[in-house]
Amino acid sequence: MSLLLTGATVIDGVSDKGIDGRAILIENGRIVAIDRPDELPAPAETLDFSGKFIIPGLMNANVHLLVNVLFETLVRYEGRYEDLIVEAAQVALKSGMTTVFDTWGPRRALMAARDRIDQGAVPGSRIRCAGNIIGFDGPFSDDFDRRIPGVGSSHFVDRVNAAWVENVGRQLMWLTPEEVGKEVRTYLERGVDFLKYASNEHGGAAAGAFIQFSERTQRVIVEEAHRAGLTAQAHTSSVEGLRLAIEAGCDLVQHANTTGPTEIPRETLELFAGKDCGAVVFPLTDNGFKVLKESISDHEWTMWKAADANARNLAASGASILLANDGGIFAPEVLNEPMIKGTWNGLPEDEALGRLATGHFVWLRAMEEKGMSPMALLHAATRNIAKAYQVDDDLGTLEAGKIADLVVLDEDPLQSAKNYQSIHAVIKDGTVVDLDALPQQRLLTAGLPPALEEEAHYKRALHHGARLPGCPSCVKGNH
Amino acid sequence: MSLLLTGATVIDGVSDKGIDGRAILIENGRIVAIDRPDELPAPAETLDFSGKFIIPGLMNANVHLLVNVLFETLVRYEGRYEDLIVEAAQVALKSGMTTVFDTWGPRRALMAARDRIDQGAVPGSRIRCAGNIIGFDGPFSDDFDRRIPGVGSSHFVDRVNAAWVENVGRQLMWLTPEEVGKEVRTYLERGVDFLKYASNEHGGAAAGAFIQFSERTQRVIVEEAHRAGLTAQAHTSSVEGLRLAIEAGCDLVQHANTTGPTEIPRETLELFAGKDCGAVVFPLTDNGFKVLKESISDHEWTMWKAADANARNLAASGASILLANDGGIFAPEVLNEPMIKGTWNGLPEDEALGRLATGHFVWLRAMEEKGMSPMALLHAATRNIAKAYQVDDDLGTLEAGKIADLVVLDEDPLQSAKNYQSIHAVIKDGTVVDLDALPQQRLLTAGLPPALEEEAHYKRALHHGARLPGCPSCVKGNH
Amino acid sequence: MSLLLTGATVIDGVSDKGIDGRAILIENGRIVAIDRPDELPAPAETLDFSGKFIIPGLMNANVHLLVNVLFETLVRYEGRYEDLIVEAAQVALKSGMTTVFDTWGPRRALMAARDRIDQGAVPGSRIRCAGNIIGFDGPFSDDFDRRIPGVGSSHFVDRVNAAWVENVGRQLMWLTPEEVGKEVRTYLERGVDFLKYASNEHGGAAAGAFIQFSERTQRVIVEEAHRAGLTAQAHTSSVEGLRLAIEAGCDLVQHANTTGPTEIPRETLELFAGKDCGAVVFPLTDNGFKVLKESISDHEWTMWKAADANARNLAASGASILLANDGGIFAPEVLNEPMIKGTWNGLPEDEALGRLATGHFVWLRAMEEKGMSPMALLHAATRNIAKAYQVDDDLGTLEAGKIADLVVLDEDPLQSAKNYQSIHAVIKDGTVVDLDALPQQRLLTAGLPPALEEEAHYKRALHHGARLPGCPSCVKGNH
Amino acid sequence: MSLLLTGATVIDGVSDKGIDGRAILIENGRIVAIDRPDELPAPAETLDFSGKFIIPGLMNANVHLLVNVLFETLVRYEGRYEDLIVEAAQVALKSGMTTVFDTWGPRRALMAARDRIDQGAVPGSRIRCAGNIIGFDGPFSDDFDRRIPGVGSSHFVDRVNAAWVENVGRQLMWLTPEEVGKEVRTYLERGVDFLKYASNEHGGAAAGAFIQFSERTQRVIVEEAHRAGLTAQAHTSSVEGLRLAIEAGCDLVQHANTTGPTEIPRETLELFAGKDCGAVVFPLTDNGFKVLKESISDHEWTMWKAADANARNLAASGASILLANDGGIFAPEVLNEPMIKGTWNGLPEDEALGRLATGHFVWLRAMEEKGMSPMALLHAATRNIAKAYQVDDDLGTLEAGKIADLVVLDEDPLQSAKNYQSIHAVIKDGTVVDLDALPQQRLLTAGLPPALEEEAHYKRALHHGARLPGCPSCVKGNH
Repeated sequence: MSLLLTGATVIDGVSDKGIDGRAILIENGRIVAIDRPDELPAPAETLDFSGKFIIPGLMNANVHLLVNVLFETLVRYEGRYEDLIVEAAQVALKSGMTTVFDTWGPRRALMAARDRIDQGAVPGSRIRCAGNIIGFDGPFSDDFDRRIPGVGSSHFVDRVNAAWVENVGRQLMWLTPEEVGKEVRTYLERGVDFLKYASNEHGGAAAGAFIQFSERTQRVIVEEAHRAGLTAQAHTSSVEGLRLAIEAGCDLVQHANTTGPTEIPRETLELFAGKDCGAVVFPLTDNGFKVLKESISDHEWTMWKAADANARNLAASGASILLANDGGIFAPEVLNEPMIKGTWNGLPEDEALGRLATGHFVWLRAMEEKGMSPMALLHAATRNIAKAYQVDDDLGTLEAGKIADLVVLDEDPLQSAKNYQSIHAVIKDGTVVDLDALPQQRLLTAGLPPALEEEAHYKRALHHGARLPGCPSCVKGNH
Repeated sequence: MSLLLTGATVIDGVSDKGIDGRAILIENGRIVAIDRPDELPAPAETLDFSGKFIIPGLMNANVHLLVNVLFETLVRYEGRYEDLIVEAAQVALKSGMTTVFDTWGPRRALMAARDRIDQGAVPGSRIRCAGNIIGFDGPFSDDFDRRIPGVGSSHFVDRVNAAWVENVGRQLMWLTPEEVGKEVRTYLERGVDFLKYASNEHGGAAAGAFIQFSERTQRVIVEEAHRAGLTAQAHTSSVEGLRLAIEAGCDLVQHANTTGPTEIPRETLELFAGKDCGAVVFPLTDNGFKVLKESISDHEWTMWKAADANARNLAASGASILLANDGGIFAPEVLNEPMIKGTWNGLPEDEALGRLATGHFVWLRAMEEKGMSPMALLHAATRNIAKAYQVDDDLGTLEAGKIADLVVLDEDPLQSAKNYQSIHAVIKDGTVVDLDALPQQRLLTAGLPPALEEEAHYKRALHHGARLPGCPSCVKGNH
Repeated sequence: MSLLLTGATVIDGVSDKGIDGRAILIENGRIVAIDRPDELPAPAETLDFSGKFIIPGLMNANVHLLVNVLFETLVRYEGRYEDLIVEAAQVALKSGMTTVFDTWGPRRALMAARDRIDQGAVPGSRIRCAGNIIGFDGPFSDDFDRRIPGVGSSHFVDRVNAAWVENVGRQLMWLTPEEVGKEVRTYLERGVDFLKYASNEHGGAAAGAFIQFSERTQRVIVEEAHRAGLTAQAHTSSVEGLRLAIEAGCDLVQHANTTGPTEIPRETLELFAGKDCGAVVFPLTDNGFKVLKESISDHEWTMWKAADANARNLAASGASILLANDGGIFAPEVLNEPMIKGTWNGLPEDEALGRLATGHFVWLRAMEEKGMSPMALLHAATRNIAKAYQVDDDLGTLEAGKIADLVVLDEDPLQSAKNYQSIHAVIKDGTVVDLDALPQQRLLTAGLPPALEEEAHYKRALHHGARLPGCPSCVKGNH
Repeated sequence: MSLLLTGATVIDGVSDKGIDGRAILIENGRIVAIDRPDELPAPAETLDFSGKFIIPGLMNANVHLLVNVLFETLVRYEGRYEDLIVEAAQVALKSGMTTVFDTWGPRRALMAARDRIDQGAVPGSRIRCAGNIIGFDGPFSDDFDRRIPGVGSSHFVDRVNAAWVENVGRQLMWLTPEEVGKEVRTYLERGVDFLKYASNEHGGAAAGAFIQFSERTQRVIVEEAHRAGLTAQAHTSSVEGLRLAIEAGCDLVQHANTTGPTEIPRETLELFAGKDCGAVVFPLTDNGFKVLKESISDHEWTMWKAADANARNLAASGASILLANDGGIFAPEVLNEPMIKGTWNGLPEDEALGRLATGHFVWLRAMEEKGMSPMALLHAATRNIAKAYQVDDDLGTLEAGKIADLVVLDEDPLQSAKNYQSIHAVIKDGTVVDLDALPQQRLLTAGLPPALEEEAHYKRALHHGARLPGCPSCVKGNH
């Protein structure tokens, strides 16, 4: 069965501008040719996209399809994590992302969702996944939420941590490089698509400053990935953690612009190009920065400022920049929670980088503000990612022979980054996606249920921590 | 339809010993006559219980059909609390308890389960329920588990607390007696079967020593119950809290033997009989005490010793003693949890008073050890409870006109308290219960699922709180 | 030796206005006569206070001369609590208070300071003290700061708690009224000047809503005080706690206007006059309220509003109003501490009721705003207190035969409450106090030492709780 | 002035056994000659030590003269840390240690104590000190006790942390190697005697598994020390942290046998000799291990077992072994504290390695058990340390020209390690120390004061965390 897309300006990700007067012929899920319509054979079906703009399917170099790892959520959906992941993959697809790279999550459920989508059993963004970040402990641990052990039952706490961590958690830090290599090899054999490891710790201990693995161990880990034919990447959060990761041979590094209060030195900026290492950046918009500043400490602000300078410097350095945002879906009770104020998730919808449905649009606007050219933005969202992940034979540009993943926009993305939001249609594997039907099952994307009648009666007149009026000994925190 | 039970020794709870040679005729769910078989009309069906012993259906004056209010459990079963309650009511029935009084739980779910059972839609022990204990905050509060607010989402924490508390929580402590009375009236109108209020606090603040309501407020609360035609009872845990409750006019008091480190004074012991107030006691067996002693502090031991002396003194005082045990079902992950060591639930199965399925047997053995006569034990488990709860027109003894709730035992309960466990059959509302079919749906009574393969890989080599070998500054608790 | 004070307007606290043309003759520490100068014998010394205003020495019905019971302070000054108390008594005297009633503190140190001042060994406000509040646990406990046990050594924690509590702590709640009476008797024999007990809990458990002792126990406690010839008072913080205390026979009640979110009902307002019970109120100024509102929760604000309404209603009710403020001295590191924001101590200096040196002036301005007459204000600060504490034979007014405690003001206090601050001289026991010399030894009133050179180097770039920029799992509180 | 020591067996640390018939001639604090008495000039004074054994003054490669950094202690002795350090140096001297290397403490106070002792103003063990461990935060931080910020005032918490950390704390982890080098240089200029840095984190975050500084940063730090003419050493606690430190060029590494649950691989064992790096080990005696096992978790036990195997393997590997023990003095309230159970300090006196007064004797017995020869033990306690710290021109053996630091023993240390405890006399800088006079001022070595009378009255009947008897919801930890 063949499909012909006509009438649109084609921005193929290869040429240096959009091209008019060309049609795209698709057969069996792949692009057969891009040419003048009259040069092409008659297709079974033709879609006229006159006045539209066709770009390669968007990609995201770092999502977490199951990011909402609060204790409550993981209890509520126990046994259904795969469903949550499918829901997220459908939200991603609806938002123009035909391929997403999940860089941390429960391996087994991620692979199951990946396979269902690959097999066409359910629609969804193409998932490629890493499972655990080598070296991290699970969701209910010092690496993520240290309050849960003791509050949750040992049974459940251990079970969840095990599902995320398996044999490649914090205990690897005790081992020799060779022993670490062996554990990594075992893990990779379970079928993940690429490898991610921790060059820096996650942040619970020292806001991300500790080094998780020595230089030698990092080299061994990367070698194991390459030996298995997989790409390797690192979680980094300090200038030394970043440098170690590039020197260890990583194919890309995550949130390369996150380096604490210190800006990346020139020498390291140059390493990216020299070592052909993809640079994922997590930028905020100018307005997002302004909002954030009001709710964080001076020290945290210093870190954010350095992250912003790094994003600009990386973009200007010639490094291959990749779009990503830790994108995920948060339960409605989280987004309504006072405790997220002052966090990434506390930003207003329009500036919230981490939302799976919209964060990539924020990314594009933010990097446009920081001076990236229209074509560089497109590359960051498509072919740079394909190349870094070594899937550029199939994905990342509109070229004959590649998988027919593409997005049809109403407005010209090369005119303004905000036009990426004007999604008219999404075609994945050569098929038009029924966007209105996504997500098929609303779990985390459903709203909160209505309040109970009992809630109106329940007045928390004596809530936790209330203090007696006028008691001089009632300094905050005593009770 | 009529049913005749023949051949058994009938211990009717009225006579001072078991009577042989009598049959029990049941029609339309009620006992029509107890007489020599040849004096009775021919029934539709006859059951021969030769060599067995028939006693009134057992009752329990204090259960919590949904006691396992751990955060994890309440998340997992959100929307299905009614099912958990039905499961528990079926466990109770299977264990010989034809009527249970639930003295704390989610009102709406309890009433729904009660009604389904009353209507015969599902089998189960007859439930009579109080909903919240007037004055207590919800499961996720200082009264029960103060760690949850902040760990759980505000949305869920408030929702659960509201479902338990409605308008009769801690905030009542701020009000005048008249204002409290008004709130209580509103609450009683929602359809609970009896009223329970807090004379002492629950224990989170001062191990139960604080007084929750003034004497005047307590009187007003009891009056509201009586005005509504309901019985009133109090949660008490100190000698003054106990005295206040009896003087306020309570029909019974819960765990009357729990009074901190101080034994109940003679004057108060005498109040029970003088005021015709039922005395619920929570006893441990001698062996249970021995086991417990090893895992609790000296101070806690002092409290347990006083509780034991109180149980003996109450039994000897002429007070009407009621069997009860806060009986409930605990999730398997709780019963496998190291953190229950040193608690009521940490006792070995045979001595664990609080288990719904077996705790009443522990109670009977324990009070037998403390010197109660065989007939006094039977009364404590049946007619004393019926009388205190003012349901003795229908329940509590085997007499013509009463509801046909009865238990058939293989062994003589007047010989030894342990014989109550020899349940041969249970008849409720005149119908033989299919014990093997209970519980119909295993939720909390199901075992733990098998371990995941991932769990074998996950070695918690760096668990929360591990300390560096030999670090002099690593005093416990620093990290 | 005799002293004659001439020229001033004398506001004696008995007459309904100030009287000109009278002189006060003092001999041996007492007022011998107040009369026209020419009617009086020639004194050894004459002081001309022309144009000034003489009022009785100010009193404070509730101070805590050692209120700064932070762990750090009690470690630093171990063994020198008496010195801290003397320092505070000197600050009080300097501020016009010739007598203060310390209603909670370390008994032994308070009595030692009291005796040194009574004997003239050091200058200072006359101290009368209660020691512990019967029923309260110590400074390092759930009643005050529950974080300290486990952080401080058991040795020190127990030692401090013991010094405050002795035999009259929380454990009394377990006892029968008679047993409580016996413990109280033992405590009173140690030499305190009056008795204070807890009708409500202190606030750590339920913001002050629990009842600490039953009505019967409260009566027994008050009787013990009266039998010992001492006055009795209660700590109250709910409408029922307040009512119980008055009905138990208290001579005065503390912070009678603090009753949670509920205003005192009319019936209880009338009890004050009916039972001749002094009403201590803790008012804030209008401006203080405005500032406070910005930093507290809605629920706490509800409590403050009720406290304000109560203050107004009590003043209008005919109750005998007493000035008091929990006055104490806070260490400079506390007053510079971010964590006091949103507390009583976080108010700006001019509106901070709880400061020992100035809080009584805030009180007078606040109650003037709430409509008390100039003469009522004076009585609240002097003779009402003397009467409630039953020391009015000696103190509270300027009358022949009374102790010569008086304050000379530059401005007329009957014109405006703020004129109480215009202290020209203080005479105690007939002697002019050298105000400039007070306090003689600066401990808590000393400023902070200058910063160390090391502090400039120490940049807390990785402070406790900093979060990684842009981490979606870094919800507040996880780490 | 000259002094001649005669009659003893001289174990000089150079010869392979003790030598009889030699006398030691001392002049001006140094050894002039060791020879047959008749070969030596007549001294001013002669001390006959017939039957005794003379060894070089003992050294300790790792003490913390102010190790008791509990909040309470640092408050109590604020401004007197120097006195605590002098007290500890006197305890060390009394125990035969003529030189100690303090590897973590408050720089300014340590240097002041060091100088007072060097100048002869007070007696004491010769102190050489490092100040902070480069990279560590202060005593009241995540690195040591994370509970204190918020409990202590910001003022004091910052002040103490600053005194320990200055400009070389955790924030260095954010910097580039060159920037770290610059900060280190500044710190070394303040006058410390050697440099210590963190190769692994201290243990609060991941029990010591994280890497604190990258390999490149570690090399820069070591170079800075060497450039300043100082030795460099590292705090290590994992096999990779250990390897990095040796490869970075450290002159010695601390607690080299502490490597979590993993034993040091052969390759790294060989690095010690190859790189001429001193190996400090912290061993326990067999009996100490037995006691410890009972109070720690299985996981912690795994770590201790590896530490033990490492100690044996290091001793057998040809590495230069150094005696050390983190020796310090603990306040009496700490040693009486239940919370030290299960820690290094909870061991019985005889097996407690960390006590300053006796731990080195434990070390010698422990390593004797593990197979070190008598002479190797002596070298570990003397000349190996001198060599590693590059003070072997002056210290470590008994040779002409060296400082006359020596210990006279009653029993032969080459017969049994326990004989090191038989101290007869200590000579430092050529002068006999008056051991009975040490320590001159008892601060931390004083016992607890007697209990107050109040303590007898204070019964903690309602202590923090007590639970209501028999409450099924009272799972441990809820309150």
